[in-house]
Amino acid sequence: MKNLEMSYLMDFYGNLLSDKQREIMQMYYQEDLSLSEIAAEYGITRQGVRDNIVRAEKELTNYENSLGLWKKFSRITDNLGRIRALVEQGSDMKSSAEIIRLIADVENDI
Amino acid sequence: MKNLEMSYLMDFYGNLLSDKQREIMQMYYQEDLSLSEIAAEYGITRQGVRDNIVRAEKELTNYENSLGLWKKFSRITDNLGRIRALVEQGSDMKSSAEIIRLIADVENDI
Repeated sequence: MKNLEMSYLMDFYGNLLSDKQREIMQMYYQEDLSLSEIAAEYGITRQGVRDNIVRAEKELTNYENSLGLWKKFSRITDNLGRIRALVEQGSDMKSSAEIIRLIADVENDI
Repeated sequence: MKNLEMSYLMDFYGNLLSDKQREIMQMYYQEDLSLSEIAAEYGITRQGVRDNIVRAEKELTNYENSLGLWKKFSRITDNLGRIRALVEQGSDMKSSAEIIRLIADVENDI
């Protein structure tokens, strides 16, 4: 099963992979090609494609473990959703205070 | 003159440097030690410290050129400042619409 998290990590750190690894990962995760289809495209074995993907996944995971930027962005997105919900439900003093608190949370995260 | 941008890039990508480079950069940019003070600490020459800093700055700049995450976070911070200003000045239909538009901008950026 393809891993949704890897698509996100590709968005963040994909540019740090080699051109070939990035292309293979894009075909696999973003264009949803099979290992065999990618193998045919590159004239390499199915196992060769798999090896490239496993190596690239490991690199992307290492970058996230070192930097944690995807996790950080996810928290920001969650807080933005809360802010929008508060704004949409109309405002009073209490919701304004809550919005400002959420913005401060996001800013501390950055 | 020390470069403020480098402090930010350290926050983002510092964990991708070697331990020694990261330590030297922290002493130089975050603890504001001089080249001579760092040289004494490590028992290396002042020029050796400078070389390490130049190399580390280049690496950090390359990461930002590839990933652009600091730039992205800066735009998010700017938009959050605008949202907070709108919330603080009290709200009406028009400012709510503007806040929701700004949140959408931030979300598209992520």
